[in-house]
Amino acid sequence: MSLTLHNFFRSSASVRVRAALNLKGLAYDQRSYMLRKGEHRSPAFLALNPQGLVPALELADGTVLAQSLAIIEYLDETQPDPPLLPADARDRAHARSLAYAVACDVHPVNNLRVLQRLETEFGAGEEAVAGWFRHWATESFGPLETTLATDPRTGAFCLGDRPGLADLCLFAQAINNRRFGVPIAPYPTIARIVESCLALPAFRDALPDAQPDAA
Amino acid sequence: MSLTLHNFFRSSASVRVRAALNLKGLAYDQRSYMLRKGEHRSPAFLALNPQGLVPALELADGTVLAQSLAIIEYLDETQPDPPLLPADARDRAHARSLAYAVACDVHPVNNLRVLQRLETEFGAGEEAVAGWFRHWATESFGPLETTLATDPRTGAFCLGDRPGLADLCLFAQAINNRRFGVPIAPYPTIARIVESCLALPAFRDALPDAQPDAA
Repeated sequence: MSLTLHNFFRSSASVRVRAALNLKGLAYDQRSYMLRKGEHRSPAFLALNPQGLVPALELADGTVLAQSLAIIEYLDETQPDPPLLPADARDRAHARSLAYAVACDVHPVNNLRVLQRLETEFGAGEEAVAGWFRHWATESFGPLETTLATDPRTGAFCLGDRPGLADLCLFAQAINNRRFGVPIAPYPTIARIVESCLALPAFRDALPDAQPDAA
Repeated sequence: MSLTLHNFFRSSASVRVRAALNLKGLAYDQRSYMLRKGEHRSPAFLALNPQGLVPALELADGTVLAQSLAIIEYLDETQPDPPLLPADARDRAHARSLAYAVACDVHPVNNLRVLQRLETEFGAGEEAVAGWFRHWATESFGPLETTLATDPRTGAFCLGDRPGLADLCLFAQAINNRRFGVPIAPYPTIARIVESCLALPAFRDALPDAQPDAA
């Protein structure tokens, strides 16, 4: 199948989907949208994805899927091998809860558009914006580290020795954290999992700097 | 099975899970955590759910599932009837993308802890906080209305004539929006879907004011 990923090199949600496509061994074309220039708000892109957010995955017949986590679940349902979620329902809930702890609790609050809004509404300067980012990253990475360090299901990756949905989200956030100076040393289990990810081409090839639109 | 829902009457994510349990016909006990008093940060609750967030669902054997969307997917996988997601993979992606447009793009940014942080970090007053809430609610409800008004799969509910994951998220957010004076009239399709939800006891019984801990 011919796939086109509408994305932006630095977008954390785009990193997740690129790594998922790579793990599934699916080839895809890329279209880039410069978020600071508002290219994701152009009429052409809104016609594709009314939500006006990247990433969006365009399938061969022109169907467009929005939202990174919905795309990843779709890929896992339609291309089950290798699986991105475990088989057992409780393990799946565990994997999803780790993923959402990043995708719902950290990333949305630290999104570019939110950080920009802090500047325009509250006059937040660069340091205050970075402090905001670090606060929410730290707020969630502490509990995530506790959970991962104590749960017997944790292996080289979040669940056992195979990368999946939770790793995709954790990895993308950890990479994003670097930009804002959030140290990973206080989270040794997370650091180890990120290293496991970085050992795989699927994750390395999804990194922002590896993309054609990286400045 | 004996289920205990750790939740708070006004929490939007708690509304979603209560309505999901009701739609599945599952009985559950409730424990309430007053968020403004920080009861979800108590050592007793953190021992149950290290993420320190409500809702969390405690199963009969003491297993605790965190994150509302992970809980709802778990319920749907273990108690498939009635289904909360459609059968077709693309329709499932559509349902999840609508759900995440609320659960990832609106709710986290308008969470109590985020609103409180605007006060403490940037001295935001009541009106500025309400303005922040309305901005993000409006930012996502516009595109959601466009999608729902134009997608042929939209019926009495987000996908056809059966309530599901997307409706749970949309309903909970619409109820939350009322508190901050976000009018629903500009979103006639969403308004109609919320009315479809309110016609069902499963949703009415999940409303904040119907809970034992409603002040």
